[in-house]
Amino acid sequence: MSKLHTPLCDHLGIRVPIIQAPMAGGPSSPELVTAVTRAGALGSFGFAYMQPEAMQRDAEAVRAHTHLPFNLNLFASQQPPAIPAAEQRDAITAVAGYYEELGLPLPEPVRPPFAPDLEAQYAAAAEIRPAVLTFHLGAMAPERVRHFQSLGVRVGGGATCVAEAERLEALGVDFIIAQGAEAGGHRGTYLRDPYDAMTGTFALVRLIVRKVRTPVVAAGGIMDGAGIAAALALGAQAAQLGTAFIACPESGASRVHKKRLLAAQEDETLITEKFSGKPARGLANRFIREMDGRDAPQLAFPAQNALTGKLRAAAAKAGNPDFVAMWAGQAAPLSRAMSAAELVEMLEAETLECLERLAALRA
Amino acid sequence: MSKLHTPLCDHLGIRVPIIQAPMAGGPSSPELVTAVTRAGALGSFGFAYMQPEAMQRDAEAVRAHTHLPFNLNLFASQQPPAIPAAEQRDAITAVAGYYEELGLPLPEPVRPPFAPDLEAQYAAAAEIRPAVLTFHLGAMAPERVRHFQSLGVRVGGGATCVAEAERLEALGVDFIIAQGAEAGGHRGTYLRDPYDAMTGTFALVRLIVRKVRTPVVAAGGIMDGAGIAAALALGAQAAQLGTAFIACPESGASRVHKKRLLAAQEDETLITEKFSGKPARGLANRFIREMDGRDAPQLAFPAQNALTGKLRAAAAKAGNPDFVAMWAGQAAPLSRAMSAAELVEMLEAETLECLERLAALRA
Repeated sequence: MSKLHTPLCDHLGIRVPIIQAPMAGGPSSPELVTAVTRAGALGSFGFAYMQPEAMQRDAEAVRAHTHLPFNLNLFASQQPPAIPAAEQRDAITAVAGYYEELGLPLPEPVRPPFAPDLEAQYAAAAEIRPAVLTFHLGAMAPERVRHFQSLGVRVGGGATCVAEAERLEALGVDFIIAQGAEAGGHRGTYLRDPYDAMTGTFALVRLIVRKVRTPVVAAGGIMDGAGIAAALALGAQAAQLGTAFIACPESGASRVHKKRLLAAQEDETLITEKFSGKPARGLANRFIREMDGRDAPQLAFPAQNALTGKLRAAAAKAGNPDFVAMWAGQAAPLSRAMSAAELVEMLEAETLECLERLAALRA
Repeated sequence: MSKLHTPLCDHLGIRVPIIQAPMAGGPSSPELVTAVTRAGALGSFGFAYMQPEAMQRDAEAVRAHTHLPFNLNLFASQQPPAIPAAEQRDAITAVAGYYEELGLPLPEPVRPPFAPDLEAQYAAAAEIRPAVLTFHLGAMAPERVRHFQSLGVRVGGGATCVAEAERLEALGVDFIIAQGAEAGGHRGTYLRDPYDAMTGTFALVRLIVRKVRTPVVAAGGIMDGAGIAAALALGAQAAQLGTAFIACPESGASRVHKKRLLAAQEDETLITEKFSGKPARGLANRFIREMDGRDAPQLAFPAQNALTGKLRAAAAKAGNPDFVAMWAGQAAPLSRAMSAAELVEMLEAETLECLERLAALRA
């Protein structure tokens, strides 16, 4: 059998140019990361909402099974200071009806820190010393990039526009993840208005590849081997797939999230800020439609995420899709429920098949 | 030299699987269509705003130079009835300052028909009997599809979601153009809310290819051979490029439009309804930002297009980008100013090069 290979594979120490996207908040469980990593792709932890001890625990859980490289992702964004009482009241009132509907007590005002301390997370990451570390929603300080690289960690960052890719190249990262507008989850934009940086994967990858010399990874709307081949055609050296892995049995996504993904027939995703305070793409549901419909008050990221946490968790537990953040990319209807190892194998085989089909077009 | 070939090439009678997108309102001049057609790709007229006599004249102008196949595109959408005086007043007031600024008299209230009669355009198209006819912004009646096909015309339609692709397949069209959200110009959506059908090219092409058996053409964000190869990887049988041809000397686009395209460094496009009454993607300018910023009153399509016509024309003539509808896709910064024949040749060579590069990835 022929093999699929790009220079970035060697650089990251992976067999196939496929990255399972880090997905903070559940999907990228140690089981998923382990299975993907053992299959020869790059498994990724989405540690944005995890405390250092939990990061350590999860990383060890993977290392108990494999010493192959995995990726650890953090959100390189600042937290807002304490939030005024009036703002809290409005944001709580906006979600109060939903909490009541699920029989939950009203949420308390949220207090900083609204998410784990980023410095402490970086320190834990340096101790874990993963083969790869990526950051999203901002830029890491240059000395920190160099520090991780001096530890032997390959560092990658996310870009949603040319300006962000150029910033990352100036930082000296090892690779740039071009996050097209199709992508599920949080938009990584931090240098532009995120609504002005909704460039589709097809255009964005090409724009960035043509502007930088750093290897580019394509993300957004990639679900199968044809998509991976298309990403490689656009000049990417690997493809990052998130939604494709959510329905895997190893993924920690809720059952209702998996079920809805597998039932999708059409692009039914929307961008919303109402779950977390920052724009993110997920399957449309009642919470998104109603909260966006009336432009309900919200807190800044990640305070809003803290505010909606118990609602999301209770809804997921009850199998109620109305209030769950079912992050998903626009190609969600191509989701498959197969084990992560089978999926990686299938993706590789499909990509090779597609490359053969393309070779035959040269008459 | 090897050649690039898909079954759709034979079906449409073209040498290379490249379609120059129809661009109503100027760019797709007879000179451009002639040059593209003679180069072996499919030249396309955007006849949406053209009267039957002008359609005939332009088609003859191409046929004076070549008997190779070309494409004729119409907007298959309904016109609104007469518009109430109060609505007219508000819409005129919203643009009055701009008319004044250019020293133009205030626009008169617009009266139906706001655009050429579609029935008359169809009749002219049947007389012209192009090799290919495509429709946008709606669905053609099934008997009309069959009528054109009985005349030997290949018929294609535009889809922005799976449901539209399925409708087109049921209509029996010869091919489906999957218009991703990256695409410049008017969104073709007619079965969904267009803002819910902003699926990126990468995701959309794959979703549609996996759902229908009719050949698919990819459109949106494709500017070079790598993009064409990516479209073929996704399963499309051809790529449709509009923006890529706007800066050609043969294109009828205004000089300011070409200049701005060639100066773009980043995706600076926005979707607006303020020029025509329907959402369309173009380079951001003062008119779009201000009119959208204050959600200015507008008329239904194509009445708004009639209302802004003299403003757009005068601004283009004056080389003033503020009020010109500079339709463009999200990959606009990859625009090149070369003759259409050179561009088609370059696109083919780049695509073949890319396919060779991909073949080498199979270690």
